[in-house]
Formats: sequence, C-alpha cells, structure tokens
Amino acid sequence: MDLLTIDSLRNEQIEEILDSGTRWLSDLREGRISSTPLRGRVVFNVFYENSTRTAMSFATAAARLGAQPISLSVEHSSVRKGETLEDTARTLGAMRPDVLVIRHKDNGAPAIVAEIVDAPVVNAGDGTNEHPTQALLDAATIRDHFGRIEGLKIAICGDIRHSRVARSNAKLLPRLGAEVRLCGPAALLPGDSEATDCIDDAVRGADVVMMLRVQRERLEDELGDAPGEYLARYGLTAARLALASPQAVVMHPGPMNRGVEIDDAIADHPVRSLINRQVEHGVAVRMACLEMLARGG
Amino acid sequence: MDLLTIDSLRNEQIEEILDSGTRWLSDLREGRISSTPLRGRVVFNVFYENSTRTAMSFATAAARLGAQPISLSVEHSSVRKGETLEDTARTLGAMRPDVLVIRHKDNGAPAIVAEIVDAPVVNAGDGTNEHPTQALLDAATIRDHFGRIEGLKIAICGDIRHSRVARSNAKLLPRLGAEVRLCGPAALLPGDSEATDCIDDAVRGADVVMMLRVQRERLEDELGDAPGEYLARYGLTAARLALASPQAVVMHPGPMNRGVEIDDAIADHPVRSLINRQVEHGVAVRMACLEMLARGG
Amino acid sequence: MDLLTIDSLRNEQIEEILDSGTRWLSDLREGRISSTPLRGRVVFNVFYENSTRTAMSFATAAARLGAQPISLSVEHSSVRKGETLEDTARTLGAMRPDVLVIRHKDNGAPAIVAEIVDAPVVNAGDGTNEHPTQALLDAATIRDHFGRIEGLKIAICGDIRHSRVARSNAKLLPRLGAEVRLCGPAALLPGDSEATDCIDDAVRGADVVMMLRVQRERLEDELGDAPGEYLARYGLTAARLALASPQAVVMHPGPMNRGVEIDDAIADHPVRSLINRQVEHGVAVRMACLEMLARGG
Repeated sequence: MDLLTIDSLRNEQIEEILDSGTRWLSDLREGRISSTPLRGRVVFNVFYENSTRTAMSFATAAARLGAQPISLSVEHSSVRKGETLEDTARTLGAMRPDVLVIRHKDNGAPAIVAEIVDAPVVNAGDGTNEHPTQALLDAATIRDHFGRIEGLKIAICGDIRHSRVARSNAKLLPRLGAEVRLCGPAALLPGDSEATDCIDDAVRGADVVMMLRVQRERLEDELGDAPGEYLARYGLTAARLALASPQAVVMHPGPMNRGVEIDDAIADHPVRSLINRQVEHGVAVRMACLEMLARGG
Repeated sequence: MDLLTIDSLRNEQIEEILDSGTRWLSDLREGRISSTPLRGRVVFNVFYENSTRTAMSFATAAARLGAQPISLSVEHSSVRKGETLEDTARTLGAMRPDVLVIRHKDNGAPAIVAEIVDAPVVNAGDGTNEHPTQALLDAATIRDHFGRIEGLKIAICGDIRHSRVARSNAKLLPRLGAEVRLCGPAALLPGDSEATDCIDDAVRGADVVMMLRVQRERLEDELGDAPGEYLARYGLTAARLALASPQAVVMHPGPMNRGVEIDDAIADHPVRSLINRQVEHGVAVRMACLEMLARGG
Repeated sequence: MDLLTIDSLRNEQIEEILDSGTRWLSDLREGRISSTPLRGRVVFNVFYENSTRTAMSFATAAARLGAQPISLSVEHSSVRKGETLEDTARTLGAMRPDVLVIRHKDNGAPAIVAEIVDAPVVNAGDGTNEHPTQALLDAATIRDHFGRIEGLKIAICGDIRHSRVARSNAKLLPRLGAEVRLCGPAALLPGDSEATDCIDDAVRGADVVMMLRVQRERLEDELGDAPGEYLARYGLTAARLALASPQAVVMHPGPMNRGVEIDDAIADHPVRSLINRQVEHGVAVRMACLEMLARGG
C-alpha cells in the first residue's frame, strides 16, 4: 500500500489514521510514547524540494515510532549527475527501506516511484498535485478542535491553482462531511472549479478559514499587485474574519508570509489560530500513516 | 583494522564478508533483521564528494545493524574554513565514533585519516584510487548469481584510467579466481596495463560485462566524440552483448548515463541486468564490513 | 530549564555537568556506554551557521545517550522562504522535540527561541554572545588535566571582541576560581574590558594559553596585517609559550588557522596541546548537558 493521493485512501483508512493520530498526539503531549512499533525499521525521506517542516515532521514521526529516519536532499543526490527519477527510485528501492517518503516538484513523481519501489511510498507533496498527509493533519486538527468535521463550512483561500494543499483538502474534507469553499484572486483559480474570487463571500459564515501561502513572485507577475495590496484584497484580516462564524478558527500550512496573506494579529490569535496545533498534529498523523504503511495497510 | 584497499584484506576476511553479506541479504529480503550487533554504536559517514547511493547505502547498513549513522557532508564542514584534512580527522577521531566511513576526491585521503583516527576507517571511494566496498558488493552479486566466481570471464569496460571501481575490482576478482579483462577508449586506459581498446575483444565470451560510468566532460575533452558516438563505439548495446557468453550478465556501479555507456534495453533487461541487485548486495555487504570492523577485525 | 548562557547556570549545575561529563568520558574511552537515559527521545540540532565539530559533537552526544538526533541546517530551511525566527521556533516547538539545540549568527536568537519553545533549548553558539557548552568543555578539559581549576592563570588570546568562546569562558572560569587574562590585537579587544594588547604579558606565567581563531578577513580589514605577521605579533609560538608556566598547556576551540594564530609545533605538541582532548570532552560534556536538560534540570 502507498499513500499517494487522498482518493487512494478508503474511508476506514482515513478514520484509522485520524483515530491513531489522536492517540499518538496524546502520547506526544504527555512526553511518553507508549510503544515503538517501527523499532529496527528504516524510513527514507527523499526531498527534491526544501522543506523545514515537512522533512523534520516525517523524521520526528519516524523516530518517535522507533524507526531510523535517513534523509536524502536533492543537493546531495545523483540527480545532479543526470540520473533519471526512475533509476534513482530503482536504486533507493533496492536498498530496501521499510517506507519511502518523497517530495518532488513534479506532479506524479511519487506515483512513478511507487510503481518501481516495493516499499510503501508516501507522497510528501508533489508539484501542484497533492499533499495528502497535510490534508490528513488538517482534518485531524479540525476534528480535535470542533469534535467533528461533518457539517462544518471550510473556506480555503489563496493560490488555489498551484496549491497541492488545497487540492488534497478539497478531496478529503468533503468526504468527511464538510462544505469546502475555494477562493482566491481570479488569476490564481483553476479554470474548471467552482472557486470564487470574492474572499468575503467564501469567508462569510465559515467555521474554518484556511489561508494558503502565496508565492511572492506571483504577487507581481500574475496579480500585478504591490505586495501591500494583497492583504487588503485577498488576505485574512480581523475585519474579514469578522464575517466568519463567531467560533471560526484560522489555519495555515506554513510557512506564513505575515502581512501578505495573513495579518499578524490573526496568525498569533491565542484562541482563533490553530496554526501551531496543525504542526503538532502533523507529527502525530504522520506517525499514524507510517505505522499503517509499515504494517502493510 | 581499517578497510582502505582490497590488498589490505586477507583471503579469510574477504570470504567472511561475502558469507556474512549473504546472510544479511537474506534477512533484508525477508524484512526481518535477526540481530543488531551494533546497537548503541555510532557510525560517522564523512562525504567530501556527493553520492546518493553510497552515502545512503552505508547509512542504511549502519541503521540495520542497530547503529546510529551520523552524516557529515563537505558543504557543512570546516573544510570551507580552510581546516586541513589531518585536523578534521583529529577532531572527528576525538569524538570517538565506532566506525568512520569516508569518501574523498583525493587518492589516499582515507589512509591519512586512518593513520590519525583510532576507530576503524572505511574507504568509501578515494579519487581514482580504490572503492573496496564496491568491489566486494560486485563480487557478492556475481557469486550470488553464478554460485561461484572462480573461472568466470569478467570484462570491465569504460574509463579504466579514472575508475576506482575498476581498480578495486581488478584487484579483488582475480584473487577470487576470475579472469578480468579491462577495456575502454585508448585515451581512457592506464599506460601500464594490459587493457585493450577493442571492446568487442573484451566482451567476446565474457560471463560478466561490467560497464563504467563515463564523465560527460571526458567525452568531448579526451575523446573528441559527439555524445551519441560513444555508445556505438564503446558502449554496451544488444549487438555487442551478443558477443558475450549466452548466459552473460550486465553490471554497472551507477549512476548510469543511459544512451551513453549503456543502452536502455540492456540496462533494464529483466534477466541479464544485475544492476539493481548490486545495490541490494551493497547494503548487505556494507553491513558485513561494518560489523567486522566494529568487532575489531 | 534552558542552557543559554553561563550566568543562567547555578554553581551546583556546573559541578553536576563537570562530574557527569567525567563519567561519560570514562565510558566513551572504554568504548561502552553504561546507560542510555535518553532512549526514545528526539534531539533537534538546528544550525543556522555551519559547524563540523559542534553539530557532529551534539549529534554524537545525543546518539550515545540513546536519543535520535535530527538535524536541520539553514540551507534546507524555510528561512530561505522568509519565515521569521519566531515562526520557525513555533513550528519546531510544536513538533515536541525533547531538547532543541540551536546555533545562530544573531546574538540572543536562542533566547528568543527558548521563550517560545516548551522543550529545553541549548545555545550552541549565538553570534558574538555566548557558547556555553564550549566553556563547559574547556573547564572539563582543564580540570581533567590539572585536577583543579581553582588558582590557575588562564590566558585567552585573539579576537576577544567577536568571540563567544572568550565571552563564555570569561564568565565560567573565574566562577571556578581561575584568573582569566584576555588579550589580543587592540583592534579586536572590547572597549570596556581589562584586556591587554600585550600578548606576552598575558601569557607570562599562565597555566593555560587558550588561542582563539582569527577570521582571515579581519587580518586585513582591521589589522592591516600581512597574514604572516599575525603569528609573530599575536600568535602562539614556542618562544612565546616559553614565557608561560613550565607546565602550561595550550587550548584552541578549533578549527585552527595553523601558521596564523598558532604554530604547528605547538598545535601538535604531544604533551602541551590539549586541543584534541577538548573535542573528546566536548561529547562527554554535551551528554551531561543533554541528560540534565531532558531530566528537567
């Protein structure tokens, strides 16, 4: 079994990941891990794109389960010598890791690797395609906070067109019963979606407002915007959050562009912001995923 | 005891490494390691040259034995501050690793380090000199496939002059009873060897054809070749492989330049190509080497 | 509890670190660690500046205690995407490491991180401010050699103004009863100290001469010196060491600029030089620090 896309997961598997993640989070918060089911196992973390949080999160998750994380970043790889992705996959697979986690700038690269490698493969983000463990940790964070996901209104705001986080969440959260509203600048919306470029409409009455990181280059290139304008037009300010449900919470996959897509006061809000909680759930949910995969599904 | 060159190994040690590697490979394939004799140990992997496969292979081998691999790549090292190799060796040695694995662009660098450091030192490739664990894993792969090495005809083809893989294999395989034939473009042969620039002669009747990676820069600089020509003149094609023994197998230390020194159909041949098998044996043989060294020989 | 500065340590804690470090050193030298009190724990090593010795030393210390070290170097971090230090700290903290070790080019950065992160934070060197574990390992090395620190005369020579090693030692060693003399080129002394620019005066009668690394850029920029002149005027030569106590020893935090601040014959002196011993004590003292912090002080 691999974890490449949200669609590849059955409902029972999603439930199991969320439930198991809840138990691991409780262990992590108490500072004592109750078991180390991956002791003696080896988890490869192969990152073709830089990432503080995702790479550290997977390494920590592997270590907490008792496994040895072994990292490969593209700067140190034969890719620079022109080896194909397929040959690198054959090589890494032949080393017989117990799980292989991969992030890649190209859509579908993890699926190519998974075809080749015997070990379970986890997609840790591929291009503009998917980032399934991010969606799972987002779901875990929402469920932990509200006690449910069913019936919640969730606005996802920003560069929808290029966001693998948005894509995975837009698949996962509706399966769990939420109503997802995608919104962003018109130039950054996918052509065929029901997304709106009216942020206020999307945020109005929402229980969760999930902001996406906007690439600074796109601010100028595609929006023709002065940086300061993005916040007012598309970002999350206190005024805009006031349109949401009174109990609404704010999420962001990080790293944040403060003052661009999110205002400082919102990002740091002690009650409304779940941003750090997302990171915490990230380790727990990835422990659940790695354990499930190493067990064979 | 250190593992710096093939000549430094006694015959019994070579046998022990191959036998022990066979047992570890069987464990790896079954997905359960029967013992972790290096639990609590620390293996330093010090790479002054990039390498996906060798660095990952040693780290995986260390982890499978229960040891903690700790990696240092030159980009993060004091070398950039102008520290001498000797001082770096003194520093690393004083941290008391249980084994120190080193790759370096200079011939003889691991020997210099081994003089200084108390811990056993493994040469993971030094310049154009030696790469003994690669030769050992090649021998293990051949022995596993044919059941023996004695009496086999092994053609090693390519940039013999600059290849530490060729040098180590040319020492090891004859000791195990094989007939080794070195061949490559005349400009890439060492002056004093019996190597031939007639690839067809070397391949004719061979049981194993081991292709070497050719540096793209050398294609133009030393061969005056258009890239496409190398394959026809010196590379391994189906036509050329037809000259070899009917049961001949193909090897390559990787990473491959497909379409340069080896044709796709040969590289991916389901029966003839042992290339992925080499990588698999690599972890097992390095487990055997690390264990032997940590035990003190 | 955090370990940010020497002043933050109580006398009993300093004693405990030195005593515990002595026991770990004995274990390390015998090649068998008697216990692994941090088994199952995760230590983050977050380095915003390159460092062979400090990063490897902390990773080795964590591993010897049974913990899993997980490294983050700035090149692979979101810092490049413009994330603030505070947000990175929140993210890393939310992953719930058991200890977080940080090196940063800015004075006070570890204190900022410690404010945010629940886990104990170790300052592994911040700008020109402090490097407390270096001072502790220096004290351990001196105490191990002389059997005491009380009453010793210790000259610290070089770029005092920019040296976090000097600053931490100038706080620690006097608390342990030593007389510390700071000296260096006038342009590299802090304005408000009792430091002298007469190296000979500082070295005269000293029991310990601790040389600091001088940045090559400062040789020219601030000293207007030809490189060769530094050694004669401010470096440690046999002639200058002859002014010290007959039993004087030489220390250097590394990496050394041989022929600049220290002469080869002195650096490699089999009796006088404690430079490699410092590195050895480094792992042991950091084991003591990590264990104390993970235990909660």
